[in-house]
Amino acid sequence: MKELPKLPFQGVPTDPATLFADYQQARKVTEAICAPLEIEDYMVQAMTDASPARWHLGHVTWFFETFILKEYTPGYKPVNDVYAYLFNSYYNSAGPQFYRPHRGLISRPTVKQVYDYRKQIDEHMADLIETAPPHLMEGLVGSLIILGVNHEQQHQELLVTDIKYNLSVNPLHPVYQKVNIPSLPPAAPLRWVHFEGGLHTIGHDAQGFAFDNEWPRHQAYVAPFLLASRPVTNAEFMEFIEAGGYERVDLWLSAGWRTMKEQGWQAPLYWEKHDGLWWHHTMSGFLPVDQNALLCHVSYYEADAYARWRDKRLPTEEEWEFAALRQPLQGNLLESGLYHPLGGTSPRAGQELEHMFGDVWEWTKSAYLPYPGFQPLQGSVGEYNGKFMVNQMVLRGGSCATPLSHIRPTYRNFFPPDARWQFSGVRLADDA
Amino acid sequence: MKELPKLPFQGVPTDPATLFADYQQARKVTEAICAPLEIEDYMVQAMTDASPARWHLGHVTWFFETFILKEYTPGYKPVNDVYAYLFNSYYNSAGPQFYRPHRGLISRPTVKQVYDYRKQIDEHMADLIETAPPHLMEGLVGSLIILGVNHEQQHQELLVTDIKYNLSVNPLHPVYQKVNIPSLPPAAPLRWVHFEGGLHTIGHDAQGFAFDNEWPRHQAYVAPFLLASRPVTNAEFMEFIEAGGYERVDLWLSAGWRTMKEQGWQAPLYWEKHDGLWWHHTMSGFLPVDQNALLCHVSYYEADAYARWRDKRLPTEEEWEFAALRQPLQGNLLESGLYHPLGGTSPRAGQELEHMFGDVWEWTKSAYLPYPGFQPLQGSVGEYNGKFMVNQMVLRGGSCATPLSHIRPTYRNFFPPDARWQFSGVRLADDA
Amino acid sequence: MKELPKLPFQGVPTDPATLFADYQQARKVTEAICAPLEIEDYMVQAMTDASPARWHLGHVTWFFETFILKEYTPGYKPVNDVYAYLFNSYYNSAGPQFYRPHRGLISRPTVKQVYDYRKQIDEHMADLIETAPPHLMEGLVGSLIILGVNHEQQHQELLVTDIKYNLSVNPLHPVYQKVNIPSLPPAAPLRWVHFEGGLHTIGHDAQGFAFDNEWPRHQAYVAPFLLASRPVTNAEFMEFIEAGGYERVDLWLSAGWRTMKEQGWQAPLYWEKHDGLWWHHTMSGFLPVDQNALLCHVSYYEADAYARWRDKRLPTEEEWEFAALRQPLQGNLLESGLYHPLGGTSPRAGQELEHMFGDVWEWTKSAYLPYPGFQPLQGSVGEYNGKFMVNQMVLRGGSCATPLSHIRPTYRNFFPPDARWQFSGVRLADDA
Amino acid sequence: MKELPKLPFQGVPTDPATLFADYQQARKVTEAICAPLEIEDYMVQAMTDASPARWHLGHVTWFFETFILKEYTPGYKPVNDVYAYLFNSYYNSAGPQFYRPHRGLISRPTVKQVYDYRKQIDEHMADLIETAPPHLMEGLVGSLIILGVNHEQQHQELLVTDIKYNLSVNPLHPVYQKVNIPSLPPAAPLRWVHFEGGLHTIGHDAQGFAFDNEWPRHQAYVAPFLLASRPVTNAEFMEFIEAGGYERVDLWLSAGWRTMKEQGWQAPLYWEKHDGLWWHHTMSGFLPVDQNALLCHVSYYEADAYARWRDKRLPTEEEWEFAALRQPLQGNLLESGLYHPLGGTSPRAGQELEHMFGDVWEWTKSAYLPYPGFQPLQGSVGEYNGKFMVNQMVLRGGSCATPLSHIRPTYRNFFPPDARWQFSGVRLADDA
Repeated sequence: MKELPKLPFQGVPTDPATLFADYQQARKVTEAICAPLEIEDYMVQAMTDASPARWHLGHVTWFFETFILKEYTPGYKPVNDVYAYLFNSYYNSAGPQFYRPHRGLISRPTVKQVYDYRKQIDEHMADLIETAPPHLMEGLVGSLIILGVNHEQQHQELLVTDIKYNLSVNPLHPVYQKVNIPSLPPAAPLRWVHFEGGLHTIGHDAQGFAFDNEWPRHQAYVAPFLLASRPVTNAEFMEFIEAGGYERVDLWLSAGWRTMKEQGWQAPLYWEKHDGLWWHHTMSGFLPVDQNALLCHVSYYEADAYARWRDKRLPTEEEWEFAALRQPLQGNLLESGLYHPLGGTSPRAGQELEHMFGDVWEWTKSAYLPYPGFQPLQGSVGEYNGKFMVNQMVLRGGSCATPLSHIRPTYRNFFPPDARWQFSGVRLADDA
Repeated sequence: MKELPKLPFQGVPTDPATLFADYQQARKVTEAICAPLEIEDYMVQAMTDASPARWHLGHVTWFFETFILKEYTPGYKPVNDVYAYLFNSYYNSAGPQFYRPHRGLISRPTVKQVYDYRKQIDEHMADLIETAPPHLMEGLVGSLIILGVNHEQQHQELLVTDIKYNLSVNPLHPVYQKVNIPSLPPAAPLRWVHFEGGLHTIGHDAQGFAFDNEWPRHQAYVAPFLLASRPVTNAEFMEFIEAGGYERVDLWLSAGWRTMKEQGWQAPLYWEKHDGLWWHHTMSGFLPVDQNALLCHVSYYEADAYARWRDKRLPTEEEWEFAALRQPLQGNLLESGLYHPLGGTSPRAGQELEHMFGDVWEWTKSAYLPYPGFQPLQGSVGEYNGKFMVNQMVLRGGSCATPLSHIRPTYRNFFPPDARWQFSGVRLADDA
Repeated sequence: MKELPKLPFQGVPTDPATLFADYQQARKVTEAICAPLEIEDYMVQAMTDASPARWHLGHVTWFFETFILKEYTPGYKPVNDVYAYLFNSYYNSAGPQFYRPHRGLISRPTVKQVYDYRKQIDEHMADLIETAPPHLMEGLVGSLIILGVNHEQQHQELLVTDIKYNLSVNPLHPVYQKVNIPSLPPAAPLRWVHFEGGLHTIGHDAQGFAFDNEWPRHQAYVAPFLLASRPVTNAEFMEFIEAGGYERVDLWLSAGWRTMKEQGWQAPLYWEKHDGLWWHHTMSGFLPVDQNALLCHVSYYEADAYARWRDKRLPTEEEWEFAALRQPLQGNLLESGLYHPLGGTSPRAGQELEHMFGDVWEWTKSAYLPYPGFQPLQGSVGEYNGKFMVNQMVLRGGSCATPLSHIRPTYRNFFPPDARWQFSGVRLADDA
Repeated sequence: MKELPKLPFQGVPTDPATLFADYQQARKVTEAICAPLEIEDYMVQAMTDASPARWHLGHVTWFFETFILKEYTPGYKPVNDVYAYLFNSYYNSAGPQFYRPHRGLISRPTVKQVYDYRKQIDEHMADLIETAPPHLMEGLVGSLIILGVNHEQQHQELLVTDIKYNLSVNPLHPVYQKVNIPSLPPAAPLRWVHFEGGLHTIGHDAQGFAFDNEWPRHQAYVAPFLLASRPVTNAEFMEFIEAGGYERVDLWLSAGWRTMKEQGWQAPLYWEKHDGLWWHHTMSGFLPVDQNALLCHVSYYEADAYARWRDKRLPTEEEWEFAALRQPLQGNLLESGLYHPLGGTSPRAGQELEHMFGDVWEWTKSAYLPYPGFQPLQGSVGEYNGKFMVNQMVLRGGSCATPLSHIRPTYRNFFPPDARWQFSGVRLADDA
């Protein structure tokens, strides 16, 4: 049994009861997300990025087995040696990986066998948490369990977005769940909120859990700026479409224009025009687009073009974070069960900004790069974030598929600028 | 109800009892082939050519619904309008087709729903056969039913070959069925059988069912030739491999060499070398290659290169057919339930050639072209064969996945020269 | 010096004077074709198939150097060792080959250096022809010289077609030569000429030069047939276009339809519609399409679709050859200097068929396959033809870019069914 | 004639004599770079990024014609209307652009015609500069001339790098120039120079010419840091190769590893190992790699992996600029005529850092993004920089192909992280 240094989260609860409760909760939510699926739905990988639900179920389980059970349970016997290969996403230090674009071509293990795999790992984890010596739980193992729980939460969001995508390519328009999405009132008029410039402190203080890409906390100079009181709505984006936004090359980054033309984009992902009205695929079926809801499923390229058309810009991640620190951590998150963004509501008393958390991830104009002094975690889990720090843009704030306990003001999500299948939207900014 | 001329099969039984028995038998065999599958197995399309089992189940049913029920059942209501799109393979006259490479990305209709679809169509077909006026059954409808049965038999073979391929890409080596494949004695020594040259009659006489590509019967001059008494065995092909056959550019067609190098072929499809021994994926699992069995899963390019290495050649389809007319129609066909070729047995008393039918399709050196005077069937079913008559080679004789009642000496199968996932093997020929 | 058997041409003149005259003539014509080019024009390879003129000049020279001088001139020193690599097309037995799609990326040797290379080889060849012992000239060397001359003639045609293509992609519409293309009278009405069926003799008798793919002479049964008195004209093909021929899926082979849609074909290669009139790129510049000229630059797919639309078919190569044997060997060939097909003239007295030779190659419905008993030439030159015998269709009759001394009734040209940059047209046939 | 506001360069000389001298100098240098080329060399585009020399010659000329002559010369007639299309790189507001990957497929205008084009534009520009009213020259036209001169200087560097690449694919190893590259002494040991942290001023002050991406000058917080006294040498990078740097996945960004494996990189671009020694293609031919010279032709991915292997990092562009402001603007630049990086020389008296300017561009770890408050230039020239601000990394300092008058401490060059054909090297940094 290796005695590695603890991961550098401070002040996280490492008592077995809390750890086990968090573990169980994460595992339960994952399975609840999959509950409405037919066995066939678990299989689909309609694009490389959108892994089959079955693969997610196995992969998050593999994470606990590989980084905890195999390392810290004496005499542990893997459930199936081939799973180490099938369910490894991209951890080179954990061995070779089954070719990602082919995850949907594997019919075994069956869905039932994957649930069995989950059950076995849950039992082993329960044993380990109950029986491991306290110094391990307070040290690396406790940290790894917390990391594994957060990892599974990330995949909860990916399960939602990937299921949405994988059902969307079917001309039968399958409905994931028959949940009523409320009809929304018109959005509150957009206000511009002023924030002070100065040397601001950015990043996580390592009290409680955070991912390594949120460290280290550091100083950054931010000029005074304005931030929109809420994200862009569908009605506002329809104005862009109607103004020929997808045909005006001057509004687009060069790579964005090329991508958009090659892919044939004329609206956000999932939108289709029928008889002059916009419809879109949702988790509740094929529905008319609600003009009052927040815009979603746009790429960075579209977000950037939209901002340019409005003579505004996207915020930097430092601006966003500085503003977010003053806002309450609440919103339309995974727990609402809608898996769909809501509308641009009026400001609540005493609140400057609306919808900073939940509903839609907000594209920033910041490239995803290491913070000054960044060091990845030691060991295999060091492959978690750092090696992706090129050619991606930062998104902030969580979405309607993000668990509440998973999001925080310092949280850095990241996707390539052409990604559209996440719940990604736009909040405008401007120089003060 | 249209009154089209009968399809040009003469002497086929069109009494309702026989038609219904043939129909039921075909439908039953299809489902029996799928019986061992898990629901997940029905979903996989591991390459564009290898459609999911679920799609085959739906498509053969769509064939009866589209070309018979929709046309000849008064007031017929389709089971689901979208199926016309999802289950159309390539019949442009029957409307647009769902994009073929994406057949594995569709999770609905579920497998259960597809079986329900089959059941509904079976009931409608039973009604139609029972109640349709005799002139229809003796005419076009009877012919279309026979065509539909033969169509479903073709897909029985494709079900076997596609299931085999779709399970093969899984590192868990799933077993389709635990059937014991007999261990084989060494093949009989290869004899060269002499056939007379002359003006031979080629093609089907239109007495009984045949596909349109077997018509019209016509004259062709064939020079005297020799035909090998049996197809090539694995042992013989291993000699080719060991002699560097896959590295000798002089043995290959230019396009074959390029394809082989691009695809990285070093042996027949499914073969892998472990510790100096060849293993291969079979319907009964991952097994050692039996040297005494007939060679299978080679492309035309490999067949042609092998023949050149032996200073022989492949037969033309006219030679093959002329020789086959004198052989009994028997062999290791679908009914054996093995779905695996057997060995090069000794000649039975009075028989010149062995294994002409069943075991493996035999590549000929004939391009797949229309016979002189060829006319495709009228109507949509005219898209069945004729439009594929370019860039393909003819194979003859049926395989271990071909139903006995489906094969005949005049039968022309065809695949592109790089296809390997069919049960395709090699019989050598030579000039006399 | 190797003493190989003579190539199997009988009755070819092998006296030094004739050989040298033929050699010199071929070399001169090649250079005359290039005379109008700017140095820059020699460089372009606008698609993989259309090699740069400079490469052709080098390659035909390399052929003499590699297969004759290096083998039969004692102590021969190659002009430049790298040329063996740069100018080898596809002769694996002669060593590795520079990557074909990159022939246009090589700026050295310069055009001047390639002409110097030609001159040096010409001097060596003159020496060899003058000084080689008679048994060599009467034997293999003489045969190889004749082969090399015919090889260079083939590349004369390719020079014309490749230059045409390589200039066509330039929006400045460069003119290769300012030769006046005559304005043509309306084509003679199409007549159907009847030919007897029977066991016909097909292929070359090996008296005089022929390529190995024309051997051996053999018997083939041909049913009685009708052949159109002349090829299709542009006016006739415009009717096909106007009748929606490019939009009627029922007219096309499946692979043809797919190719045509992927490539965006809506007319023959080089045709563009401006203000309701068809124009096309020619060797004499960008000109209106003359309706009375013979159709050119269509693929096999278009030829086949056109024939189906007319309820006719293409001839087989056996039919074509049988008919051609009775026609005079004359026509609008390379020597006319037009490099452009002319019109469908009226029959001359006593002539059944018009334009069998020259103007446009005529697609047949025969796949390019070995004749019964085919053996490629021995040695490296055996790679000339045989290894391309798959996935190609036969064309017959030569074109406006074929030298008169190069064409004959048995000549088999071959291209993939999607090729359009050759001077390829259509002559219809029908069952008698 | 439009009266647009002046471009925002302050303090640039706009008297006709100076403008004309700068113009003439830039034009002369461009042609001097091309002087050693054969006509054939002008044609090659061996990859999409490496435009033919002829295209560069035309494009920089088009820039003056399009943005100055067409706008500000009354009654101006374009030299050739098609040039507006052929020589437009990416200025959508100036009309459509000939397809970039096909620039090497255009044989006309000939090289001579392009030089004629240059001459005509030079005459028009001389007229304009001589005769335009002072308010225009002091205003927009003067600014545009200065922009055009700087644009041409950028293409001087691209001419060198593209010529180098385009000659490199030729197995004959063409030599651009027979200039002797000095043999170098061992590099000075690497020292670490400490720089103070604090709120630093970054960007150009708009006194004199700068590109819009260098504006606006702004504040940025920079923590204390260390910078290597010189860039990495070939000897140092060979240690990385020998230590298996190209095989250690843990050293690489995920996208870098994938790119490197797909492209088969095992060393910097142009390096080849023969008999255990590294050789490389240079402008002076195929030569042994001088261990003492500065490393060149590496991608960002390689730069980043190398730094990780040394437990260091790349500098940010703010760090680099802050350090560079204190260094003399001198180095091995275009004017040396070597077009090849020299060695890691010893520090000159009183100089902290060596080789900050010239030799090799230095990859920074900064993504290429707009500075706070960035506004692109107005009009077509606004497409110059801003629309490329995604998926690229910043390089600083100029190279052996950069004109001295073109480089400055604030200059931001940018390329995608996989680009290797520029003279790009590595200077390490570290946290203080």
